[in-house]
Amino acid sequence: MSDLPLKSYAALQKTFGADIGGAANRKAIGDVYRRSLDFLKNAKRENLRSLIPGKDYFAFRIGDKLSRAVNATQFIADERQWKAFDAAVEKNDLSRFTPDQLTRIIYSVAISFCCYIDLTKSRDQKTPGTFFEYLISHLFAWKLGVNPTTRIQVLNLDMDTTLPTDFIFNLGKDRPKFHLPIKTSTRERVIQVWAHQRVLDGVFGTGRFLGTPVILAETKTDAVKREVIEICLPDQWRIYQMHIAQLKRIYYLDVPATYVKLNDVFPPITVKSFGHFFFEADTLSA
Amino acid sequence: MSDLPLKSYAALQKTFGADIGGAANRKAIGDVYRRSLDFLKNAKRENLRSLIPGKDYFAFRIGDKLSRAVNATQFIADERQWKAFDAAVEKNDLSRFTPDQLTRIIYSVAISFCCYIDLTKSRDQKTPGTFFEYLISHLFAWKLGVNPTTRIQVLNLDMDTTLPTDFIFNLGKDRPKFHLPIKTSTRERVIQVWAHQRVLDGVFGTGRFLGTPVILAETKTDAVKREVIEICLPDQWRIYQMHIAQLKRIYYLDVPATYVKLNDVFPPITVKSFGHFFFEADTLSA
Repeated sequence: MSDLPLKSYAALQKTFGADIGGAANRKAIGDVYRRSLDFLKNAKRENLRSLIPGKDYFAFRIGDKLSRAVNATQFIADERQWKAFDAAVEKNDLSRFTPDQLTRIIYSVAISFCCYIDLTKSRDQKTPGTFFEYLISHLFAWKLGVNPTTRIQVLNLDMDTTLPTDFIFNLGKDRPKFHLPIKTSTRERVIQVWAHQRVLDGVFGTGRFLGTPVILAETKTDAVKREVIEICLPDQWRIYQMHIAQLKRIYYLDVPATYVKLNDVFPPITVKSFGHFFFEADTLSA
Repeated sequence: MSDLPLKSYAALQKTFGADIGGAANRKAIGDVYRRSLDFLKNAKRENLRSLIPGKDYFAFRIGDKLSRAVNATQFIADERQWKAFDAAVEKNDLSRFTPDQLTRIIYSVAISFCCYIDLTKSRDQKTPGTFFEYLISHLFAWKLGVNPTTRIQVLNLDMDTTLPTDFIFNLGKDRPKFHLPIKTSTRERVIQVWAHQRVLDGVFGTGRFLGTPVILAETKTDAVKREVIEICLPDQWRIYQMHIAQLKRIYYLDVPATYVKLNDVFPPITVKSFGHFFFEADTLSA
C-alpha cells in the first residue's frame, strides 16, 4: 500500500483549484498527512549529526533510501494534532494554539509527505514542492478569505500584458495585497523572490503588495557523513533587502538559526516561524 | 575513444584559472572542439521539425540518445575555422571576420561539446554549462585584457562583506566595468540576471557596471515529436528592463527570433549575436 499517500495527493491535485481555501482541500490535505504517517511507521528513524546549534535532526530510512532531514522537535507523528487544527479552523478560532504549535503541525504535514516521496521516488523535487504550495496557499486563502491568482495584468502606456507571478491575494480596495512565494528551500535562487517583489513595487507602486514568502527549511544533509547543515546567506539577504526591494516577512516552518539574527540587524529583516502569520495577518499592512 | 573530449575538458578545467584570457586556454578549448567533432562524426544527424520561422535544426543521435537541437546554419563541423580565429586572435586582429562568422565559430565550439555530453551522459547540465562559462569568460578576458573575478567587496556604512557575483571585469579607473552572466539558456530564471544588475547598480552606482549577459540559445526539443521551439518571454524582459535594471546588451550565440524584435520596441532592449561584442566592446560605455 505504499502508493496510498500519492493517491491522496492526486485526489487533492484534482480538486485543488475549485476552492483553494475551502474545507474540501483541508480534508484532502489531512488524508495525505494520515497516509504519509502510516507509510513512515514502517521506516526506520536514523539520527543525524546536527551541525546546527540547538537543533536535532533525524532521517527516515527504508533500505537504501534516506529521506531529507526532519527536525526532531518540530515533527509530530500524530494525526490528532491536525484534526484539532482542522476543528479550530472550522470554528474560525485558533486562539487556543500558540504560533509555535501551529508551525509544528503544519511542518509535520509538509515534511511527512516530502519524506514519503524521498523514500519512494528518485530525485523528485517537483511533487514535494507542489504539495507544499498546495498546503501553504490553502492556508493563506483560508486565513485571508480570498483565493489567489498567479497572473496579473500590467497596463503601462502602450503595453498591455499579463505577468506570471507567485501567488497573489487581492483583498480589494484600500486593503493590502499579498505576494506569496512558496519554496521548500531557497539557497542562491532566493534573489528571485526579491526581484519579483521589485517588479510588483515598480509596476503597481511600493507598499501595495506585502511580500511574505513561506519557506519549509534550509537544511542540507550529507548522506555519507550523516551530517545536517543549514545553507544560509544572511549578508546577501541584507543587500537584497536594501537594494532590490523590501519583503515584509519571511516565514519558515523550520526557522534557520542564522536567519533569526536578521531580526536584530539594521535595517531589520523580519524572519518568523509561519504560525505567527495567523495572528498578525490582519495587521501586517500597518 | 569516446572519453577524449572529456579528457581535453578536464585538462582545460585544471589550468583554466591560471590565466583566464591566455593563449593556453584558447589552445585547450580548441582541443575540446576538435575531439568533440571527431566524436560527432560517428553520430547520425537527424533533422528536427523547426517551429521557428527561418531557422533549421537537427540533432545528433547515437543509439537511444538524442542531443540537444543544433542550428543547421550556425554549426560548422570544421576545425580549421577555429584555427583561423585562433591565428587572428594571436595577431590581435579580427578585422577579416564578420560578427556573424565569429558567432558561428564560437557557437560551433560550444554546441559540439554540449552535444557530446548529451550523447554520453544522463541529465548532465552542469558540464556543458561550465564549459560554456570557460569559453565565454576566456573570450571576454582576452578581448578586455583583464581577468575576471566572481566576488566583489561591499562596504556600506557598518557593513563589510563580499558578494558572490557572475563574472566581473574591472578595467580600472575611469573605464567601464563589465558584469557578465553566462548561461546556456535562461527561461524564467532570467530574472536573476536583472536582479544581480540591480544589486550592482544599487551598491556601486548606476552605470558603473555594463550588464552584458551571453546566452547560448533558448531552444527546446520535444524528443517524441522531433520538434524544436524557442522559449521566449519578451513581455517579461521588457518589464524587467523597465522596473529592475538596465542591461546594456544581451548576446546570443543563436539569437532567438522573438528577441530580435526587442531591438525595435521602446524602450529598446539590445539583443545581438555574440560576434558583435568583439567590435563594440571598446565603445559600449558611451
